[in-house]
Amino acid sequence: MEPTRADARGNRARILEVAEDVFGRGGSAASTEEVARLAGVGIATVFRHFPTKRELVEAVLVKHFNRLCREARSLADAADPGRAFFDFFRRLVADAAGKLAIIEAFADAGGDAAGRASQGPRDLREAVGVLLGRAQDAGAVRTDVRLDEVYALIVGASRAAAHLRLDEPVRSRTLGIIFDGLAPR
Amino acid sequence: MEPTRADARGNRARILEVAEDVFGRGGSAASTEEVARLAGVGIATVFRHFPTKRELVEAVLVKHFNRLCREARSLADAADPGRAFFDFFRRLVADAAGKLAIIEAFADAGGDAAGRASQGPRDLREAVGVLLGRAQDAGAVRTDVRLDEVYALIVGASRAAAHLRLDEPVRSRTLGIIFDGLAPR
Repeated sequence: MEPTRADARGNRARILEVAEDVFGRGGSAASTEEVARLAGVGIATVFRHFPTKRELVEAVLVKHFNRLCREARSLADAADPGRAFFDFFRRLVADAAGKLAIIEAFADAGGDAAGRASQGPRDLREAVGVLLGRAQDAGAVRTDVRLDEVYALIVGASRAAAHLRLDEPVRSRTLGIIFDGLAPR
Repeated sequence: MEPTRADARGNRARILEVAEDVFGRGGSAASTEEVARLAGVGIATVFRHFPTKRELVEAVLVKHFNRLCREARSLADAADPGRAFFDFFRRLVADAAGKLAIIEAFADAGGDAAGRASQGPRDLREAVGVLLGRAQDAGAVRTDVRLDEVYALIVGASRAAAHLRLDEPVRSRTLGIIFDGLAPR
C-alpha cells in the first residue's frame, strides 16, 4: 500500500521530534539509525525525508530555535516584563546542554553555521532584545546595559552550565549573581 | 657536532614557548611543522623532545595552567584582596581564547582530559578559591557566594568571550555586570 501524504507528514514530524531528543542527548555521537529505530520507521524513510545526516540535524536545529523564538515572542506582552525577561533567561540556560549538543552534532555532520541554521540564533537574539527593552522600560533591569553584554551573559551561563554540568542549585546561584548585577542600582 | 645538554634544554624551552603561541592562535588547525619552523629547529628535534603531537600539546597545556596558577598564588598576599580577585578574574577571561584553543588542539590530538592535563584546572580552581576567600574577608565580595558559582561565572565569561569573539568594550561591560552582582549588597 502506498503511504498517503498525511502518513508522510506524520512520519516527518515524528522523525524530527525524536531526532531533537536523540541529538540533544547524544550530540555528535548520536546516529540516524537510532532516530529511525526510536521513531519506529525504517532508515530508508528517514533518508527519504532527510537525504543526509547534515540535513536532518539542520532541520532539528531550525525547529529547536523556532520553538525558542516562539516562546520569547509569546512573552513579549507579558503583564510582568521583568519576570518574563528573567524567566526566559533562566529557560535558555536550562535548555543549553541540549541545544549545544545539537549544534555539536550539526558541526560534526559538516553543517555550515553561516547557512540556513544561522537565522535561528539571529532571531532569538532579537527576541531577547525585545524582552530586555520591555524589562528596562518597566524598571526591572538597569537601563545602562545593552543587548550585546546581556546576550554574552546568556551565552556564557549556557556554556558554563553545559560544560561544567552544573546541578540545579549551583546553576540557580550563578544566575542569581548575574540577575543581581542586572538589577537597577 | 653533538648538541650539548644545555642546547637540548634551550631547544625544549623554545619549542614549548613557540608551541603555546601557535596552538593558542590556531587551535586544532595548528601543526607541529609550524612550531618547528617558527622555533628554528628541524621537525626531528621537536619529535625528539615530544614524540607525538598529543605530548607536545599536553606539555603546552600544563605549562599554560602552571603559569596561571603561579600568577594567582603571587596575588594571594596582595595588599588589596578585592582588586587582586577582580583583576585575576578579568585576566582569566582575557586569556580565554588562547587557553580554549590549546584545549581544543589537545582534544583533537587525542588528549585525555582526565590525565596529566587535568591537574592544572584543579589547581587553578583552588587558587581562585584562595583569592575569593581573601576578597570576601576584606568585604569586597559578598560572603554568601561560593567558589562553585564564581568558577561557573569565570568559565562562562571565558567561553562567551571566546565563542562570540567579544571586543574589549563588550567584554568589559559584561564583566562589569558580573562584578556588580558579586559586590556586597
